[in-house]
Amino acid sequence: MGAAAGDEVTGDKPVAVVIGATSKWQADGRNTRLAHGGDVDDSQLPVSARWGIGGAIAQRFAREGFHVVLTTRQAANAAALEAAIREQGGACSTVELDLVSEDSINGAFAAIEASVGPPEVLVLNAGYLEGRDLPPEQELLEYIPVEMFDTAQHIASRGPFLVAKAVMPGMRERGRGSFLITNNAASLRGRRRRTGQSLYYPRVMMRTLAQVLTEEYSEYGVHVANVVIDGLIDSPGTRALPIAQQRPEIVMNPAAIADAFYYLHTQDRSCWTHELQLTPYSTTPSY
Amino acid sequence: MGAAAGDEVTGDKPVAVVIGATSKWQADGRNTRLAHGGDVDDSQLPVSARWGIGGAIAQRFAREGFHVVLTTRQAANAAALEAAIREQGGACSTVELDLVSEDSINGAFAAIEASVGPPEVLVLNAGYLEGRDLPPEQELLEYIPVEMFDTAQHIASRGPFLVAKAVMPGMRERGRGSFLITNNAASLRGRRRRTGQSLYYPRVMMRTLAQVLTEEYSEYGVHVANVVIDGLIDSPGTRALPIAQQRPEIVMNPAAIADAFYYLHTQDRSCWTHELQLTPYSTTPSY
Amino acid sequence: MGAAAGDEVTGDKPVAVVIGATSKWQADGRNTRLAHGGDVDDSQLPVSARWGIGGAIAQRFAREGFHVVLTTRQAANAAALEAAIREQGGACSTVELDLVSEDSINGAFAAIEASVGPPEVLVLNAGYLEGRDLPPEQELLEYIPVEMFDTAQHIASRGPFLVAKAVMPGMRERGRGSFLITNNAASLRGRRRRTGQSLYYPRVMMRTLAQVLTEEYSEYGVHVANVVIDGLIDSPGTRALPIAQQRPEIVMNPAAIADAFYYLHTQDRSCWTHELQLTPYSTTPSY
Amino acid sequence: MGAAAGDEVTGDKPVAVVIGATSKWQADGRNTRLAHGGDVDDSQLPVSARWGIGGAIAQRFAREGFHVVLTTRQAANAAALEAAIREQGGACSTVELDLVSEDSINGAFAAIEASVGPPEVLVLNAGYLEGRDLPPEQELLEYIPVEMFDTAQHIASRGPFLVAKAVMPGMRERGRGSFLITNNAASLRGRRRRTGQSLYYPRVMMRTLAQVLTEEYSEYGVHVANVVIDGLIDSPGTRALPIAQQRPEIVMNPAAIADAFYYLHTQDRSCWTHELQLTPYSTTPSY
Repeated sequence: MGAAAGDEVTGDKPVAVVIGATSKWQADGRNTRLAHGGDVDDSQLPVSARWGIGGAIAQRFAREGFHVVLTTRQAANAAALEAAIREQGGACSTVELDLVSEDSINGAFAAIEASVGPPEVLVLNAGYLEGRDLPPEQELLEYIPVEMFDTAQHIASRGPFLVAKAVMPGMRERGRGSFLITNNAASLRGRRRRTGQSLYYPRVMMRTLAQVLTEEYSEYGVHVANVVIDGLIDSPGTRALPIAQQRPEIVMNPAAIADAFYYLHTQDRSCWTHELQLTPYSTTPSY
Repeated sequence: MGAAAGDEVTGDKPVAVVIGATSKWQADGRNTRLAHGGDVDDSQLPVSARWGIGGAIAQRFAREGFHVVLTTRQAANAAALEAAIREQGGACSTVELDLVSEDSINGAFAAIEASVGPPEVLVLNAGYLEGRDLPPEQELLEYIPVEMFDTAQHIASRGPFLVAKAVMPGMRERGRGSFLITNNAASLRGRRRRTGQSLYYPRVMMRTLAQVLTEEYSEYGVHVANVVIDGLIDSPGTRALPIAQQRPEIVMNPAAIADAFYYLHTQDRSCWTHELQLTPYSTTPSY
Repeated sequence: MGAAAGDEVTGDKPVAVVIGATSKWQADGRNTRLAHGGDVDDSQLPVSARWGIGGAIAQRFAREGFHVVLTTRQAANAAALEAAIREQGGACSTVELDLVSEDSINGAFAAIEASVGPPEVLVLNAGYLEGRDLPPEQELLEYIPVEMFDTAQHIASRGPFLVAKAVMPGMRERGRGSFLITNNAASLRGRRRRTGQSLYYPRVMMRTLAQVLTEEYSEYGVHVANVVIDGLIDSPGTRALPIAQQRPEIVMNPAAIADAFYYLHTQDRSCWTHELQLTPYSTTPSY
Repeated sequence: MGAAAGDEVTGDKPVAVVIGATSKWQADGRNTRLAHGGDVDDSQLPVSARWGIGGAIAQRFAREGFHVVLTTRQAANAAALEAAIREQGGACSTVELDLVSEDSINGAFAAIEASVGPPEVLVLNAGYLEGRDLPPEQELLEYIPVEMFDTAQHIASRGPFLVAKAVMPGMRERGRGSFLITNNAASLRGRRRRTGQSLYYPRVMMRTLAQVLTEEYSEYGVHVANVVIDGLIDSPGTRALPIAQQRPEIVMNPAAIADAFYYLHTQDRSCWTHELQLTPYSTTPSY
């Protein structure tokens, strides 16, 4: 549908939109259920880590005085995050948006603009888990069903293109804005998919789009960046994984990732960074 | 449709399939007509240059004893090339194939296998020209119509994925084969599109696919490579361009490009190259 | 020689060492004199910009409570910067250090450790201008005198190796420290030298060293990063250049660059960045 | 010293110079002795594999009608290779050349030019093994002695610069020539050194030099290329290693590597390749 649920008058708060604000690894997320066979308890986690990167970025920008718009395919998924931000005194609303649909994307941005104003900051955090549950004997690309490829391409390539078409004209006209992409190391080059991994090679297109937009829109004052989050992100679902239990030093703090996004947004425009890689100290950076 | 037009019994000739064997820049090609307002005369050109890279590669593999299958969306486009190969004593047939359609791709490969046998060499040479005629005031990505993006993505991303699904299982089972992609410098990273250029950033996905397939299929004896053709290729339509008239030293010889493809195919498997860039001596290599 | 000039007891202030803290482009710098035929007046510039990046970084870390050690080949060059930092209430001292000499490097670090303690932060900011005044007819590599190459290699390759040998063991043993390199776009790959440019291809080795040290020392808690400063940095000498007068939007603010260094130093160790590129909004990022 | 040992009149044979034509892994090579405790018997190896890449390239160019000049620090090291080439009917001579010394380099090229004429092809194949025998507890960069770094830098950075200064002016004036570098995967980026490996990060400079020379000299008709040999090369010393015995499919055929060099030299100048990576089919390409 696409109506902004938060009704308070936002006055002149700047707007930050987080696309895909919820997490596959939140307490009741899809990956959490896939990996653990059901929901997990997140009450022991700091609130900054309960909804992965999207949630941490949303909380951080809210704390800095932004009205944060969470987008998700189903508003109910974001209810707990929205409540948490409001409890922290932040301004927040939720809009349904499905990256597969051009109408959904355009409708959502029209609704956002009408209710809280145009985005100052756009964080593209949509993910997918297609491929993750293919069995070991179907590791090769030839076993990827076409529907799986199509979904990956919608989230990683066509959807981001449509979002750029929706928000870049306004940012260009206003002469400012940040368009920030959360990505992973799979975006750096094509690699073989290992059993248990998603079909991530289309994420290279998110990085490529960032490169295109950087060259095209920087001179208009719009800051584009691809952020390569090069490790396992703390969240209810990942913290419960055996690997995270055994090697806690490889787990990345979402609040620190959110710091990086806020740092990028506030960089002096004489010194913009267009790709930022974040790697735990205990691991070798991907390339 | 997808029926192989060449009817001779091929006996045990190895098969090379050239997808997109005709050229946008051939005497009656789409780009030729766009740039010159009509067909051009190609009788002064060496036959190796009349159909761009696809035609030169087809002629080269035919000369080396392959049965060459030309694929094109409309068989009539390839008739002159097929005739030329036959005149040179080569074995050749034409199959219609549209990269936008999974059925067309699968049908074409079924027809090829039934008529001449499975491909030993697959050259992915499909191109597109979407974006090339956008006016200067529509240079930015926000002006790219969605349909244009979708076409680019079909040719550069989804189509190649489908072709890989169609041919890699057989190559893997036979323990040999070459899967070679003709690409350009736009595949190396995202760049701004300049007026007169096609929407080429999705070509990064062709290179990324080559990287994935290289990691996945090399050990099975299948040689995958992305070839970056880093300049203007000689052909009826390009030779007539002002830039080629003024700076003939920047024009690349398609027969020499075809040599590179044949060299790749014949490399000893202890020494495989998976990316090959070709640049005219007179210009600085792209990166 | 290598004695620390600042005599105050530093108590438990952490130590930041800036190698090459002065600027070729400061009011009386070598490049300034080369480009403008003499000294320039810097009284109109903010104090943060008077000594280029090295000076800005030194001031920033001093403001954050560090005892800053400036190194330079001749202490007199750093006197004005040291005075400025003291005026701002910062703790600062100067040590002579010549990257060409292993003895000088080792002596300087021994003196620093003895007087103020081991470095928590090491910023490698040494530069050179060899090649900059070769005439247009000597643009090619064949015209570079061997002595010029040797100097470039001392500053960009051998000197940084020696500095790493001097400081990494201590940082490794203490389990913390930042080793940050200021570099430029020439470090990203080999390029042709244009008239007026320095012989910068050896700077690739500074970046390569950062990659080596990142892989080797991160797990010990030492944060290594190569910072690619991708444009013209504001300073007395550069601000007076015609290009900077005509296109002020391409000039980078050294205080903002210093922010980036401080951000890197303070990153949570679960989210370290090992290469950071900074580009003015008005220009296309180098690669 | 630097006198050409082969005295026959070469008439108009083109000249190919192979710097470092012998191998650390030949039957009596330094690495062979280090790894196996003495010389090995090479009588079972094809003659093309007895002196590694340098020997295979030398034999290949001799077979193609070149007068091949072998350079080595001590002429005796190349005697067996020179004899083998002569037995095959090839023209060959040996010149002593030490990359550490500018005088040695310049003297050697003067002697070559005087005796057989200027080089049409220059292959830079010098290697070193510094670092290979450091014990496991000295794996980190801090344990690399300065002398070891200096040797690596002479072979990988300063020596190649001096060779370029010696041969590029002539190639530029004649409007033709190939300057080809044999390199390995360590040249692609800085990596941690593992026990048993040489200090290879300075090899990045050989690649960088190739990039500089490519940009500067291509337009003059001089073809520069960096060849990344991405695996274990067959030779008397390597074939006897346990890893090569257990996994023969990872061993690269030097004759096939030599084919790649000859292919590069004969590429049409409208289609030059400036970096060529060669990887065994059974392994994942380095990057």
